[in-house]
Amino acid sequence: MKITNQFIQIEGFKASGIYSGIKKDPNKKDLMVLYSELPAVSGNVFTQNVACAAPVHLSKSNAESHYTQAIVVNSGNANACTGTQGDHNAQLTSSHLAELLNISSKEVIVASTGIIGVQLPITTLIESLPKAVASLSSDGFENASEAILTTDTFEKKTSVTFNLNGQDITISGMSKGSGMIHPNMATMLGFFISNINITKELLQKAVSESVSNSFNMISVDGDTSTNDMVSVLANGSAGNQLIDTEGLAYNQFKDALSLLMIESAKLIAKDGEGATKLLEVNLVGASSEDVAKKCSKAVISSSLVKAAFFGNDANWGRIVCAMGYSGSQFNVDKVDVAFESQGGLLKVFEQGAGLTFDEELALQVLKQDMVKININMNDGECNAQAWGCDLTYEYVKINGEYRS
Amino acid sequence: MKITNQFIQIEGFKASGIYSGIKKDPNKKDLMVLYSELPAVSGNVFTQNVACAAPVHLSKSNAESHYTQAIVVNSGNANACTGTQGDHNAQLTSSHLAELLNISSKEVIVASTGIIGVQLPITTLIESLPKAVASLSSDGFENASEAILTTDTFEKKTSVTFNLNGQDITISGMSKGSGMIHPNMATMLGFFISNINITKELLQKAVSESVSNSFNMISVDGDTSTNDMVSVLANGSAGNQLIDTEGLAYNQFKDALSLLMIESAKLIAKDGEGATKLLEVNLVGASSEDVAKKCSKAVISSSLVKAAFFGNDANWGRIVCAMGYSGSQFNVDKVDVAFESQGGLLKVFEQGAGLTFDEELALQVLKQDMVKININMNDGECNAQAWGCDLTYEYVKINGEYRS
Repeated sequence: MKITNQFIQIEGFKASGIYSGIKKDPNKKDLMVLYSELPAVSGNVFTQNVACAAPVHLSKSNAESHYTQAIVVNSGNANACTGTQGDHNAQLTSSHLAELLNISSKEVIVASTGIIGVQLPITTLIESLPKAVASLSSDGFENASEAILTTDTFEKKTSVTFNLNGQDITISGMSKGSGMIHPNMATMLGFFISNINITKELLQKAVSESVSNSFNMISVDGDTSTNDMVSVLANGSAGNQLIDTEGLAYNQFKDALSLLMIESAKLIAKDGEGATKLLEVNLVGASSEDVAKKCSKAVISSSLVKAAFFGNDANWGRIVCAMGYSGSQFNVDKVDVAFESQGGLLKVFEQGAGLTFDEELALQVLKQDMVKININMNDGECNAQAWGCDLTYEYVKINGEYRS
Repeated sequence: MKITNQFIQIEGFKASGIYSGIKKDPNKKDLMVLYSELPAVSGNVFTQNVACAAPVHLSKSNAESHYTQAIVVNSGNANACTGTQGDHNAQLTSSHLAELLNISSKEVIVASTGIIGVQLPITTLIESLPKAVASLSSDGFENASEAILTTDTFEKKTSVTFNLNGQDITISGMSKGSGMIHPNMATMLGFFISNINITKELLQKAVSESVSNSFNMISVDGDTSTNDMVSVLANGSAGNQLIDTEGLAYNQFKDALSLLMIESAKLIAKDGEGATKLLEVNLVGASSEDVAKKCSKAVISSSLVKAAFFGNDANWGRIVCAMGYSGSQFNVDKVDVAFESQGGLLKVFEQGAGLTFDEELALQVLKQDMVKININMNDGECNAQAWGCDLTYEYVKINGEYRS
């Protein structure tokens, strides 16, 4: 299995990314179309936020179609908190694109990201769709992955290839997100395509499971957006025998998809607003998967833990404290904590008690741009990983000084 | 009913606050004793954190005694994550104080706040107890309320007086906390005394209910400490008829206690680390109390909302978004949001849609040191209030730069 930070083209998929006029800066692309020429099934996960945006409402419904042939995304405007006009605009987007592509509007997934509470400039968007469709090409993914960004500082492209009983399977993806971002800017988005031949049901299952171990295990600031969405399209062009049961082939695909989504999630955490370092919690020895996930998520979400890492402070007390309020039951007297990076390994807490450690080594370990928080609960066989970033002046600046 | 920010003395209660040598700076008191000469019942609430500190373990057990005659608190060391030695040290503290006061060690509540993971300098503490006991006096509450502080920037004293069928009832309290504070410093503490005559069972009920509407509705950074504790002692010296059923008298007392705890909670929120303003969520019209509490707590806890207020940004999108991920079901199209302060009233969101507003007025409303976030869910009869503060550079500095 091979993972890269490139977007590998897949037969039958085309994409484009253009500037339509939604963003103010004409140098920033803001409209993306992804199109599958072959019939493709999709697996999707949507935000749990009750105040979810109009495109999320529509896409949830459209995702029930057997086939999904296109994804259209605008950046610069979230079409969230926009009432019935917002719903209408999302529908107009899907129906106009469907007409241009000669597909059913039910086969279109719509996503938006950007400012909340402002109506989408729908005329501008619709008038730009023919250009976006005319620009569709098999090497259009570079432009496409650019067009879904808002305040991200870099594009998040990932691909994985593996061999399934002699067939080369590829999954390629583009993601977006760097926290709840710029004032009123929001959203984590992920769009993936694959040539694998798999049923819609099993694709959905693989997507749901993979998201729970990847995108659901990152936290930049604990705020869940109104627009979060992950979609995976599979067109079967690899020609492998249809995966319609949970066997070896399904597991191979799911493992590859999970790894790819974890890689994408880490890119998002790394690009967290104002972040200076990527944090990874590796928690082992939990009594249940629920405990493992809750504890690791509590640690990565704690403002105090995040601020301590910004200050290169080996503050294990905050880590144990966050585990303690995670809602999980465990015995703190069994817990070990260590920090690990290119700078070395620093054990700070063992069997419920703090260890004395060398402050020089601590600084050496913590000042790196990727630091692992290794936790052993010594209480069972369950593990979890979570990713986040440090809390910095820059985060407060980005999120507090927009209007002042 | 009259609430003040002074500590009103109550017959039969004495207190002292001295420097014992736990803190480095001899100008900062670090040992407090509160003593009830008359038999007193207590109501208590302890942290839910699984990794709770040794004094919390001990005090939970001691709180089951019918009478509670003394409270001893040290600041500067949390005695948390200190294993069996920590438990032993908490027990030594209670037994030595009990001997000096000639009471049972089970009648002593012990609390600690300060650095996590370092053993309490128990010899220093025990050797200072005779001095603390010798200093006990009815006007010792000023020193006492000073001795429980860590990084707080001001003392948090509150009292309420009311008339119960001809008897003057007083409740007086001292609180402590300004977020999970200084690296390794933690904890919200509240100690209250009253002359009311009430059964232990009903006192406990009143305390639990009042805490849920006050201290449980504040958030500085979302981190629940290992040492949080609230204790209320009532010695019956007012001579009122024993309150042993939930009638009018009970309700009067509970209302007074709730108001007092809300006032104390607001002082803690106002003193949040690095805070420049106090935020108050007034949420009305929720379909259930659970929805009201969850939504208001989510808003006050959101890093994005808090950062927006630091920047005087009328960012209603983040407020609606936080309500959306609170775990509550509601219809966003019914929600109204307004901001209110000495600077005026600013309506920003009505019936699920953003309103255009005057930016000048917005700045005027938001730049005050106390801003209300008024939310009407227009969906029922339930209300909730929550308090917090803005997220500032100073917060990141306090919590990130301790060791670097």
